[in-house]
Amino acid sequence: MVLGRRFVLKHHFEGNPKREDFDLVEEELPPLKENEIQFHALFLSVDPYMRPYTKRMSPPFTMIGSSVAEVEETRNPNFKKGQTIVILAGWVERGIVNPDAMGKNSPGNTLGGVMPAPDLGPKLSKSLLLGACGMPGNTAYFGFLELCNPQPGETVVVSGAAGAVGSLVGQIAKIKGCRVIGYAGDDDKCAWLKSIGYDEAFNYKKVGVAESLAKAAPKGVDCYFDNVGGEMTAAVLATMNVRGRASICGAISHYNDKGEYTKVTDILPIAIHKELKIEGFLVGRWKARWVEGIKAMAAWVISDQVKVKETVVEGFDKMPEAFMGLFTGQNTGKMIVKA
Amino acid sequence: MVLGRRFVLKHHFEGNPKREDFDLVEEELPPLKENEIQFHALFLSVDPYMRPYTKRMSPPFTMIGSSVAEVEETRNPNFKKGQTIVILAGWVERGIVNPDAMGKNSPGNTLGGVMPAPDLGPKLSKSLLLGACGMPGNTAYFGFLELCNPQPGETVVVSGAAGAVGSLVGQIAKIKGCRVIGYAGDDDKCAWLKSIGYDEAFNYKKVGVAESLAKAAPKGVDCYFDNVGGEMTAAVLATMNVRGRASICGAISHYNDKGEYTKVTDILPIAIHKELKIEGFLVGRWKARWVEGIKAMAAWVISDQVKVKETVVEGFDKMPEAFMGLFTGQNTGKMIVKA
Repeated sequence: MVLGRRFVLKHHFEGNPKREDFDLVEEELPPLKENEIQFHALFLSVDPYMRPYTKRMSPPFTMIGSSVAEVEETRNPNFKKGQTIVILAGWVERGIVNPDAMGKNSPGNTLGGVMPAPDLGPKLSKSLLLGACGMPGNTAYFGFLELCNPQPGETVVVSGAAGAVGSLVGQIAKIKGCRVIGYAGDDDKCAWLKSIGYDEAFNYKKVGVAESLAKAAPKGVDCYFDNVGGEMTAAVLATMNVRGRASICGAISHYNDKGEYTKVTDILPIAIHKELKIEGFLVGRWKARWVEGIKAMAAWVISDQVKVKETVVEGFDKMPEAFMGLFTGQNTGKMIVKA
Repeated sequence: MVLGRRFVLKHHFEGNPKREDFDLVEEELPPLKENEIQFHALFLSVDPYMRPYTKRMSPPFTMIGSSVAEVEETRNPNFKKGQTIVILAGWVERGIVNPDAMGKNSPGNTLGGVMPAPDLGPKLSKSLLLGACGMPGNTAYFGFLELCNPQPGETVVVSGAAGAVGSLVGQIAKIKGCRVIGYAGDDDKCAWLKSIGYDEAFNYKKVGVAESLAKAAPKGVDCYFDNVGGEMTAAVLATMNVRGRASICGAISHYNDKGEYTKVTDILPIAIHKELKIEGFLVGRWKARWVEGIKAMAAWVISDQVKVKETVVEGFDKMPEAFMGLFTGQNTGKMIVKA
């Protein structure tokens, strides 16, 4: 008898996620049918996007998300026992899927259900497949390079800079010859940001954006990579140069908003006056270039041009706590659960 | 002795513009110096952009704006007596300028100071050089086509649709094979919009945006051309399709805002989820293609594919009233003052 465990989201989040929003389900796994595989997770990902995504789904359901897993049993000719995969199966410690039938029904399914793990070489942890060499890495790589089109000598601002994506964006910007300024929520994160190459890093709980950018970005801001939204974004946009580009990746400050988004949009007069381009994106836009992004990021990590930090929570049963920690600033770099 | 008249803006506007914000100055014009010309205005333009522009200037100054004028006297070899010009001299009935010295000091100087009037042929009024075949025409032409990139069969929404720019955008969208929905502030304007080709036109004072678009745009909105901002814009963005494009031309609903733009920007979560591109612009961006735009618009007007309406106020001394009327919905199409 093989037991599997998974987390079920019982209802929509109200305010910040809580332990009680989840049920940990333990169940006996049935025998494999044709084309199915049985996997167990090695590392699981928790990411801020899970909050807005689940808003548009109907609970209860197995909580969404991707993991790096190992194939334990297989009746699918394309997957071998022992093989490492990246799988969008949700918060599942051990489970069964039919890889051929996955995809359309997997929310946020950027990777198309199950993907054989790209080979990162001997030096890198497989957990990076959920971070710098996975979805967050491609979010930084394409979302920043394609939408901000940064030029050498330009000034780049990153909000949520110490997160999985923001910490990569700043380092990519440095590689591209930009001056980079980051905002994060505590002094330790800011110190870390400077240690990985950020020219300036500010604790937004201590200093105002306008005030700090007046000193740190005397020539104005050309590119803004936004993980936060809200007043932070309004303040950064107000400092931007003509024809500045803002890539809107996340809006974590809005995730406690209730109902529809009907507040007034005072960023528009600034957008006109400064001729700003403000573009939101989901990383699935670059699905066709997925491996290109992972290879580029992996090469930078191997050559030490991009430094990676993970906040690792041990134990599958701690998935909710790891997820909750994303919204209270517990992670520096990528938040990972080691199963 | 030659007398000239001009309007001086005494101080920044507070709330809607008022007659008392202006002084009408009458003064004797000096003899022409070398390279100067003396002109008198035939038609003068009042435009919403004048409000945000003057906010960033230091009154008192001659109120800004462009006019179609005739050269009365000339000591400049490039300008002949009797020649028609388009000039960014401000609210000036008769005045003197040195065309060679204009440009850098003229705010919003898209046309580079003084431009010989493009020949619109025998059928069109020279007043169109301030409207469909001038700055508003190019604003519609480039601002819509270049930033929204409309495709046949797509749905386009225009706010401020009965204004000088909006009425042109809708007709350009029809030429490009789109379905076009406009919002305006009274029923007569809506009736007129339908008469010039808008598929649907709604009085935003009577019907909600979400409600009306649910019926009028069942396939969602692909392009939004915005003259208004505020809650109208938030509501339209919420109906947009994935990868929708919003061209932010004006924000007339914000022009009474005080101080800085620090309210929260709830459009950002929508921008991410729908991967919207929201781009503000000033028409000077397409300065190098200015004549191309005017020629294209003139050809459409001559062939009756674009219908033009002007609201003409008679008498130079009525400039403030014409301008004030822009913010209380007095104009259908382009507001013009006939000197």
